[in-house]
Amino acid sequence: MTAVELPKGLTTMEQRMDGQNTQPIGQAAPSRDSAHTVVLRRPYLLFLGEETLALKAKTAYGLRDWAGDSCIGQLRMPGCSVDLGLPELDPSAAAKAGAGSLVIGVTPPGGRIQASWETLLHRAVDAGLDIVSGLHTPLASVPGLADAAARRGVALVDVRRPPAELPRATGQRRSGQRVLAVGTDCALGKKYTALALAQAMRAQGIDADFRATGQTGVMIAGGGIALDAVVADFIAGAAECIAPAADPQHWDVIEGQGSLFHPAYAGVTLGLLHGAQPDALVLCHDPLRTHLISWPDYPLPSLSEAAELYVRMARLTNPGARVAAVSLNTAALDQAAALAALERAEQELGVPAFDPMRTSMQRAIAEIVR
Amino acid sequence: MTAVELPKGLTTMEQRMDGQNTQPIGQAAPSRDSAHTVVLRRPYLLFLGEETLALKAKTAYGLRDWAGDSCIGQLRMPGCSVDLGLPELDPSAAAKAGAGSLVIGVTPPGGRIQASWETLLHRAVDAGLDIVSGLHTPLASVPGLADAAARRGVALVDVRRPPAELPRATGQRRSGQRVLAVGTDCALGKKYTALALAQAMRAQGIDADFRATGQTGVMIAGGGIALDAVVADFIAGAAECIAPAADPQHWDVIEGQGSLFHPAYAGVTLGLLHGAQPDALVLCHDPLRTHLISWPDYPLPSLSEAAELYVRMARLTNPGARVAAVSLNTAALDQAAALAALERAEQELGVPAFDPMRTSMQRAIAEIVR
Repeated sequence: MTAVELPKGLTTMEQRMDGQNTQPIGQAAPSRDSAHTVVLRRPYLLFLGEETLALKAKTAYGLRDWAGDSCIGQLRMPGCSVDLGLPELDPSAAAKAGAGSLVIGVTPPGGRIQASWETLLHRAVDAGLDIVSGLHTPLASVPGLADAAARRGVALVDVRRPPAELPRATGQRRSGQRVLAVGTDCALGKKYTALALAQAMRAQGIDADFRATGQTGVMIAGGGIALDAVVADFIAGAAECIAPAADPQHWDVIEGQGSLFHPAYAGVTLGLLHGAQPDALVLCHDPLRTHLISWPDYPLPSLSEAAELYVRMARLTNPGARVAAVSLNTAALDQAAALAALERAEQELGVPAFDPMRTSMQRAIAEIVR
Repeated sequence: MTAVELPKGLTTMEQRMDGQNTQPIGQAAPSRDSAHTVVLRRPYLLFLGEETLALKAKTAYGLRDWAGDSCIGQLRMPGCSVDLGLPELDPSAAAKAGAGSLVIGVTPPGGRIQASWETLLHRAVDAGLDIVSGLHTPLASVPGLADAAARRGVALVDVRRPPAELPRATGQRRSGQRVLAVGTDCALGKKYTALALAQAMRAQGIDADFRATGQTGVMIAGGGIALDAVVADFIAGAAECIAPAADPQHWDVIEGQGSLFHPAYAGVTLGLLHGAQPDALVLCHDPLRTHLISWPDYPLPSLSEAAELYVRMARLTNPGARVAAVSLNTAALDQAAALAALERAEQELGVPAFDPMRTSMQRAIAEIVR
């Protein structure tokens, strides 16, 4: 395994998003998108409001780092000290430069749209931009914004809200190949793993797309469905829409959600696993975590236990499903300890292990596509 | 095992609802209900519209048979030939007799509220009755009905729609004992099994309540949540609300949903399994079914395979979970074949097997509560 140094000071998954990966990894072929997924109009103007904390601008950093080609500028209000290093554009300049959407890239306290933003949101609509938000407050709650958007013919897109009229799953095997990131817990790098894998696969010339199942992922990919907000009966159906039938050689790299071992969210995970029909699974894990994060009564499963259960459950809809690689979040380990943890994982499961932040994914990709 | 004759002509689960069980099995202690579940105001006036087919009045028959004490009358329009044998009451007479709600007990074509019903629905609201519906059309779509209900201070309850503000699951073990009906497939008798079990347990003097997770069940119980309509992230949380903490000796008998082996609905099943934290499982099965109903590509699991997976998954939130009994739907078998199928199931799993329509549940109940 080829090891690379961990960039200085990068210790959490949030901070990891602050890298410099600018190759686009969203859908190469938007026409293949299902009518049932959210589709965003790119490129984006990233709105940073009056934010002073980089951590609260995670969405904006994620978009800059993973969908850089889709980000043509930033819009900052007086007092904003977060700087993505993108051109400063106001809504009309962004529209003239070809922007499709203003994306709210910050999360203020309470996850709410701020009253101080309203004038700028109206100016964006007037300039012909769609507005894209992942906040709790619906965009239509901004006074007059829905009417203005209807008059101007632009969309207000709350990416938390799933598309209407989702179909139930069919369970029918479909063409194309799919790899799904799954985990021993929530919040240990499934999205990052899928993004990094899709990028590395494309860099190797493999026809691959990142497929989004969470709101930040949807913004990065320019489409998808935030699966946690879908009505229970339609989880697997939504997953089928997110990664639809494709060319037999094509790979969809699907963002995972939750964990089969999580007492609150395993239902979402299982529906996604069944609808995704993955040929390959990448098992994501944090070697230092002993219990589910914030759930001290729930010990983490071993890698073997997790791999066995994921494969067993996945085989309901894809009898060929297998664990092809392990993705370890070794951010809190020094280099020697990280390599030892990766070694142990390889020995335990007999497949390549990697940390997308510090080691090569080549052997893992070879195992995924073999 | 004590066998009883199958009542003549009863061959499907729908027709089975047309029995004569009138002992109430809903919550004995409504005050124990969570603030997060739907709560219906009883007793009911059952509305049959202009229905001519008993099969389309399944909801009304189910309420009469399983919540007989909560049904004080029927309301039929000209042309209606379905007759529940209940007193004929108009809305004001029903209100005077103490009715709390008019319940729409029929499913017309398309599952829609009929224009011809609107006058009577308004009369029910004017008489001070809540209106309860499990149809697709929201009650508020009836012209003027929402305003009239607000003025009169009565509720329009669409039982398909889950309560607002459901909490996420806590995963914390709670007091009281719970038995959950689970299945090798959908539509093979999980609701009927739970209703019959709750009734038989109460008849034996056990402190037991039926807990509803589907719309017909919610009407029968007078409360609960239609789980298939809950947003994905809240499935397990809703299940925790449906069967909340109770007296250590109390048993909640929980209606099951879907199947872990179903490619479209397993996510709902798993969320329910985790939130229910069942001490005992009753595995429901149709011995003649070889594949999931309407899914010819999906073979049914064996009883052993199903039992093993349900127990394994249930033990995440209740390490003591076990399969305590098997409920077989033997409606399509003659008596000898039914008894042989029950025998085989007992031998395969080593627990009592019963058909709630034709055999005693005594040994199964003893195994559940042991």
